[in-house]
Amino acid sequence: MVRFFVKKEELQPNFLVLTGENAQHAKVLRLKVGEEVLVCDGQGGEYLCRISDVSPGQISLVVTGQQQSQTEASVRVSVYMAFPKADKLEHVIQKATELGAYEIVAFPSARCVSRPDEKSLSKKLERWQKIAASAAEQSGRGRIPKVVVLQSFSQALDRAAQADKALMFYENEHAVTLRMALEEGNYETVSLLTGPEGGLDEREVAEARKAGLQVCTLGKRILRCETAPLCALSAVMFASGEF
Amino acid sequence: MVRFFVKKEELQPNFLVLTGENAQHAKVLRLKVGEEVLVCDGQGGEYLCRISDVSPGQISLVVTGQQQSQTEASVRVSVYMAFPKADKLEHVIQKATELGAYEIVAFPSARCVSRPDEKSLSKKLERWQKIAASAAEQSGRGRIPKVVVLQSFSQALDRAAQADKALMFYENEHAVTLRMALEEGNYETVSLLTGPEGGLDEREVAEARKAGLQVCTLGKRILRCETAPLCALSAVMFASGEF
Repeated sequence: MVRFFVKKEELQPNFLVLTGENAQHAKVLRLKVGEEVLVCDGQGGEYLCRISDVSPGQISLVVTGQQQSQTEASVRVSVYMAFPKADKLEHVIQKATELGAYEIVAFPSARCVSRPDEKSLSKKLERWQKIAASAAEQSGRGRIPKVVVLQSFSQALDRAAQADKALMFYENEHAVTLRMALEEGNYETVSLLTGPEGGLDEREVAEARKAGLQVCTLGKRILRCETAPLCALSAVMFASGEF
Repeated sequence: MVRFFVKKEELQPNFLVLTGENAQHAKVLRLKVGEEVLVCDGQGGEYLCRISDVSPGQISLVVTGQQQSQTEASVRVSVYMAFPKADKLEHVIQKATELGAYEIVAFPSARCVSRPDEKSLSKKLERWQKIAASAAEQSGRGRIPKVVVLQSFSQALDRAAQADKALMFYENEHAVTLRMALEEGNYETVSLLTGPEGGLDEREVAEARKAGLQVCTLGKRILRCETAPLCALSAVMFASGEF
């Protein structure tokens, strides 16, 4: 079924109106009176609706049912990624959304070669959030992952450490595998932290351990900075029974 | 250690000479007499070497040891991908190589919107093989995955079916998960077959079952055609104990 995301404050229990980009999208899809669509609040709530009127720039809907999204993952996985070059971050936002990430958190680290300046940040954040929204729509998710930008590496560690499983991936760690890290105890929330193009430096890894993160390996091959978080996310989704 | 790939026929048991792109690369890295490098035959064999002479366009090496690559996966995973648009296939070749795929096999399917014509194919194949070689080098692999192009869908099924686990991923399969498919019995070789942008059609799925492939799901979210094979590959590597 076609799905539309609307802001939570626009939702009403009986009738809904799609405007702007949503109405345009409905027009492109040639939706007609009587057809059913799904309207999502982007936070996991979904309204089953029937189209009652199609006017230029405005589609009216009657709400016929309400449900929680069936496509969200049972485990909340936060992807923490040190700022890579711009196109790579966009790539990770899109793919991590498809793969079911709960949120994507970008932060600076010592070897980051790229970092958005204060001035351009709000525009970029808006763009990144749009990429997440569009990927959520395409993949049939009921929730749009939030894209979060943090100001410092230590902020990222403190925030990531709050998850039931807080994991950092480091190429020089050879003993502890992701499997080992996931095997001990139950978890509902997971943080996966990976470095930038140049990798994490030793002091950062030590700092992460101190903050309570477990440092582990993604195997014998060196993964690019945009591959590592998606590989780890896929494995965690698999390990938690998603597929 | 810096690694160079050379053709198997150029390898000799005691002395080696790097020329062409390899010599250029060595120059860029400012390698000097006495330094150690690793020379790989691209098929899992590795020679530990010491630089004995640096001349313009030519680096001479003394072989000090021989070993099998330590970075190859224990399971041989073949990624079968229906032709997507060009940039996506290149993306999958690069990433699948990093993630440890044994080979990448492209083939036509009913809903492929893009398919290289006979004439341009050999040039493209050369380009794809170069992408695999470069990704193998970057990720520290001892083997360059072969990129294979097949002429028909049924050829792909027959070839894929020869693996211990031959799996097809289909968005309308909801019962059988990848985990279930991997749980029964041991396996040393795995085929992972995924569709193009428009998905696989029902007749193709039926044909695959008939050829002996197991059809399974990658979860509740719809993955793009370039995301699905990498997600499945990551999960199989995780499941087989790579990380």
